[in-house]
Amino acid sequence: MRLTLAEAQRVIDAGVKEAERIGRPMNVAVVDDGGHLVAFARMDGSIKASIDISAKKARTSILMNLPTADLADATQPGAELYGLEHLSGGLVTFGGGIPLTRDGETVGAVGVSAGSVDEDVTVAQAAVAAFQNRT
Amino acid sequence: MRLTLAEAQRVIDAGVKEAERIGRPMNVAVVDDGGHLVAFARMDGSIKASIDISAKKARTSILMNLPTADLADATQPGAELYGLEHLSGGLVTFGGGIPLTRDGETVGAVGVSAGSVDEDVTVAQAAVAAFQNRT
Amino acid sequence: MRLTLAEAQRVIDAGVKEAERIGRPMNVAVVDDGGHLVAFARMDGSIKASIDISAKKARTSILMNLPTADLADATQPGAELYGLEHLSGGLVTFGGGIPLTRDGETVGAVGVSAGSVDEDVTVAQAAVAAFQNRT
Amino acid sequence: MRLTLAEAQRVIDAGVKEAERIGRPMNVAVVDDGGHLVAFARMDGSIKASIDISAKKARTSILMNLPTADLADATQPGAELYGLEHLSGGLVTFGGGIPLTRDGETVGAVGVSAGSVDEDVTVAQAAVAAFQNRT
Repeated sequence: MRLTLAEAQRVIDAGVKEAERIGRPMNVAVVDDGGHLVAFARMDGSIKASIDISAKKARTSILMNLPTADLADATQPGAELYGLEHLSGGLVTFGGGIPLTRDGETVGAVGVSAGSVDEDVTVAQAAVAAFQNRT
Repeated sequence: MRLTLAEAQRVIDAGVKEAERIGRPMNVAVVDDGGHLVAFARMDGSIKASIDISAKKARTSILMNLPTADLADATQPGAELYGLEHLSGGLVTFGGGIPLTRDGETVGAVGVSAGSVDEDVTVAQAAVAAFQNRT
Repeated sequence: MRLTLAEAQRVIDAGVKEAERIGRPMNVAVVDDGGHLVAFARMDGSIKASIDISAKKARTSILMNLPTADLADATQPGAELYGLEHLSGGLVTFGGGIPLTRDGETVGAVGVSAGSVDEDVTVAQAAVAAFQNRT
Repeated sequence: MRLTLAEAQRVIDAGVKEAERIGRPMNVAVVDDGGHLVAFARMDGSIKASIDISAKKARTSILMNLPTADLADATQPGAELYGLEHLSGGLVTFGGGIPLTRDGETVGAVGVSAGSVDEDVTVAQAAVAAFQNRT
């Protein structure tokens, strides 16, 4: 079954709540299993660059079928996928994008951006947890 | 004062409610006074092309400081802005994008897409009305 | 269930066979329900411009959830979607792209290009028929 | 003589067969001597990012007239072609793209992506071998 707007909105709400808890305003994007945007929210005071970055993190998670954090090592100078970030319309190779899975299948992804990468990952994980627990 | 996420979300909620009322699932985007996305929702069953179109309608309303419906006549073959749609990273020249104003100043814009242009405008107007009445 | 490579290949084979029958070499592209390419074939002697055009016709059919032929009238000068072709990364607004449906749901699309639009549509219809009959 | 669709399809079939043998679903693209796509297949379960990557690997092999693996060292920080990947519309500088030659002349190229770089190269080599042996 496809990811619904109601589900995407719950994922974003959970991300926003976690971002408020850690005191860091974030951009949170949710895409479907084709990488197309379903819902998005930019919290007051968060940076504008993260509009694109959060959406691309979510899209990268779909296109690579991986959390974006898993791409960081493999794309360093000398590593085997060095240069990957320029391909497929632009991929993000640091943490903050995580696939949303249902019954073992990827049905969408969330992307979070505007804080440190650790903060982005923390917020993305809270958003994913809300999805996994409720559906 | 800047458009807040809470305000953008109210604008989207009003658009979604009107879209449900007329029975046409829509994409609704809200941008700030720089044309940068603040919030977005794609209703279940609405077309994916309208992700970009709704966001670009909102952005066009900011860049031109006009409802996008006002650009239709001026961009026809032979009219004075013929070709405008190719510029500024892509502008939409049919209805569905409307500025959000406060005290006579443009603070953001809403873009709606996925139905007929008339339906898009109807939903965008409902979204704008919710903004003007509540803030 | 997702469109498989075997299904996409059958769609392409049926398109190629029809293209041979009418004596017009074609480009045939099949995309999944997210608009992402699954299989592609360019027949010997067909024009190179149609690589992009066939893929974009298939992608447009997904993004608009319509045969691309249905967009021709609505995007003429003076019609309500005039200028649509510049949006969503480039949409094709003439015939040759058709959605592939299963149990009433769009699971992919085929795009055909290199002949006259009538020829493209004829080949695309033959490709779609092979999909609908076998699955 | 130009690369034919039948030849391109044989190259892809050999790649797909090798990919099945090693148990890693792949994207396989074949381009002509101008770098333009002739045939493409995305195996079930392989990642979507590799649609673009496999096609760009094949295209890079034509534009540089080299296997893409030969570009990895020269494009590292401090090496003489550092930054090459941004040019000519996007080049891939890791392995998986190999020219197809006939009588010492490059007539096309194959690009393989979705596994580790070693797996991609293994599958590309099997695809090339099928071309060299049969034509």
